[in-house]
Amino acid sequence: MIDWVKNYSINARRLKKSAIREILKLTNRPEIISFAGGLPAPETFPIDEVIDIVDTVMKREGHKALQYGPTDGYPAFVDQLLKWEKRMNGLDLTPANILPTTSSQQALDLIGKILIDPSDPVLVERPTYLGGLSAFNQYGARFVGVPMDEDGTGLNVTDLEGKLQELREDGEHYKFVYVVPDFQNPSGITISQEKRKRILELSDEYSFILLEDSPYRELRFEGTAPDMMYKMDTSGNVVTLHTMSKTFAPGFRIGWVVGPEEFIDKLNTAKQASDLCTPSFTQSIMAEFMARGLLEKNIERAKLLYKKKKHLMVDAMEQFMPQHEHINWTNPEGGLFLWITLPEYFDTDKMFFEAVDKKVAYIKGSAFDCYHKMKNTMRMNFSYPSEGQIEDGIKRLATLIKSKLKD
Amino acid sequence: MIDWVKNYSINARRLKKSAIREILKLTNRPEIISFAGGLPAPETFPIDEVIDIVDTVMKREGHKALQYGPTDGYPAFVDQLLKWEKRMNGLDLTPANILPTTSSQQALDLIGKILIDPSDPVLVERPTYLGGLSAFNQYGARFVGVPMDEDGTGLNVTDLEGKLQELREDGEHYKFVYVVPDFQNPSGITISQEKRKRILELSDEYSFILLEDSPYRELRFEGTAPDMMYKMDTSGNVVTLHTMSKTFAPGFRIGWVVGPEEFIDKLNTAKQASDLCTPSFTQSIMAEFMARGLLEKNIERAKLLYKKKKHLMVDAMEQFMPQHEHINWTNPEGGLFLWITLPEYFDTDKMFFEAVDKKVAYIKGSAFDCYHKMKNTMRMNFSYPSEGQIEDGIKRLATLIKSKLKD
Repeated sequence: MIDWVKNYSINARRLKKSAIREILKLTNRPEIISFAGGLPAPETFPIDEVIDIVDTVMKREGHKALQYGPTDGYPAFVDQLLKWEKRMNGLDLTPANILPTTSSQQALDLIGKILIDPSDPVLVERPTYLGGLSAFNQYGARFVGVPMDEDGTGLNVTDLEGKLQELREDGEHYKFVYVVPDFQNPSGITISQEKRKRILELSDEYSFILLEDSPYRELRFEGTAPDMMYKMDTSGNVVTLHTMSKTFAPGFRIGWVVGPEEFIDKLNTAKQASDLCTPSFTQSIMAEFMARGLLEKNIERAKLLYKKKKHLMVDAMEQFMPQHEHINWTNPEGGLFLWITLPEYFDTDKMFFEAVDKKVAYIKGSAFDCYHKMKNTMRMNFSYPSEGQIEDGIKRLATLIKSKLKD
Repeated sequence: MIDWVKNYSINARRLKKSAIREILKLTNRPEIISFAGGLPAPETFPIDEVIDIVDTVMKREGHKALQYGPTDGYPAFVDQLLKWEKRMNGLDLTPANILPTTSSQQALDLIGKILIDPSDPVLVERPTYLGGLSAFNQYGARFVGVPMDEDGTGLNVTDLEGKLQELREDGEHYKFVYVVPDFQNPSGITISQEKRKRILELSDEYSFILLEDSPYRELRFEGTAPDMMYKMDTSGNVVTLHTMSKTFAPGFRIGWVVGPEEFIDKLNTAKQASDLCTPSFTQSIMAEFMARGLLEKNIERAKLLYKKKKHLMVDAMEQFMPQHEHINWTNPEGGLFLWITLPEYFDTDKMFFEAVDKKVAYIKGSAFDCYHKMKNTMRMNFSYPSEGQIEDGIKRLATLIKSKLKD
């Protein structure tokens, strides 16, 4: 009889079950209005188009689309990605700058694998994307958190510089700074143009790789977009992660990484050992979907819907949430999430179970904090709940919060 | 300007480009008859069935099949896998014993991640599957190779026991033994029933996890199958890897792991951090494909074809290869590969380039040896080349070998 635990590696012992995935199991009951998940609205999924495209692609190139493909990516798909990056982000890339991945979570895992040695400092926003924390944590990252400014312009760059200076003085080998600059998951915050510039300057001064995770950028439904950081960078310090999960559908698990050739080549080698290649089948469908101009259309459809839902949520909060100087929320111009901050004495970890009793769910903010603090915050998803559910759910949540106010 | 190399982790520095993938790039020219790849025959791909099933599944459950799914697997697919394991292998499993993976290469990667600490001894067959070597190597495995017996019954169990005894005496923490027991890639060898029994006894005596990688088992086109090692095991020491890549098509990148609950649970946690979940889309199609009984039909189709191709290859070798006491090949009863052994003084690494000049390709045996020796061997794939190519290709190869014989 094997003693499994005694056979686990150090990596395995670092692995923790995702707090979110465990929580989501509690919120699956139909009577619960859930703002907890991070799911795109299924009504944006292009079902009929997929049926038609599979027919075309299978008849035209089924023998190729069902075969093993190059780790570099299915050529027709890479070709579409190059055009997309040019059109959407103004980037002039070659295939050597791109690697399709089996979801951008895979990219986070691979990047963790090839950059992080145990105890390496990794700088992240507070809060930051949970999937980034869990990917990097496996490899023994020591997180250094940089707070967000209260003015909604993103992380505090003075604090970032201070931490970099300290790490440098301590002789620490920090390797990268991880940011989600557009409509961040979980906060909905977008880093301002000015700050992007400053972060890139720091990247040169302190010689770090900037990891720009960009799943929501295309989902801007109001306001003006700052530039993509990859585009602004003149030193070749930036690696950007993209995904089709929010613009097309998550069920394909397709993402791609854009970066300097040298880095993409190493990432490619890591990917060979991890899954040989991203499914040719889904890449071939995606290539045809893009070639037909359907990705833009799908994004337009999603934006219209998410804009409406976000406004419904913000309006409901303005109407029902207690008026209190320490109760605030972000008002994102795109993406899937907003962020609520409550008075310091709130504990949203504990309040979660009461909320579920009241048939409404959110994700506790501490899940997104590398220090597991920020217990007076919560992430709210507005893309998945139906329009009808949003007002009711916010009412329930507001009532609960009101009942716990001490002042 | 980032110095990328100085930022790479120890894991990254261990990563080497796959010898096979680099070689395959040389063999893509149409005039070359290639026995090098490991590709299933595209004529076995169920293209029309996929078109029809996508139509059904998208209309019935498109909103679910395009959404994120549980890491545990798409429920309808897991259900089909349980039935399949019962029917094909006589296994009584629960969903807690199964984890769908994004290709069985992902399973190898995750298992390496959760079991191997740097310098841990990992016992493997000589030769063994290259993808296993590259997955385990990333995490710092120190390979201990066990030779195959010349009688074609698989690895030498006395040698295995001797190595385990030695490792135990040295106080080494070996954790698992990796075998591909059915029509092994690369050798085509199947481990005999008697040896399977003995290996499992050793697994108890020396307390190691037996990793049974089983991508070809269903493709037995002649002879009688020994039992699956997972089925024979009474101690719960075995973890088995499966894939749809050879029985259905590689382009979906779908595999699954069968193992004890405790281990599957840990693997699930590792998978969360690696890609969140296997694509719901491909799992939903696969579930319907299996529910319609099409997987059996596809396997029958592949077996007929591969049997014919294997016999063509063996017949051609008997006819054209030089008669020499030290020129031998395996004659597998299933799978995709056979293995040629030449006199000791041959160097198939070097001969490869001459072969490509003569417009025929194979993979050098040393690529599959954990010690990079075995330079007088080569792997031959018979599933992918067309029936017409097999005789011509063997003629070309035989002529080359003849020209290099010294005795």
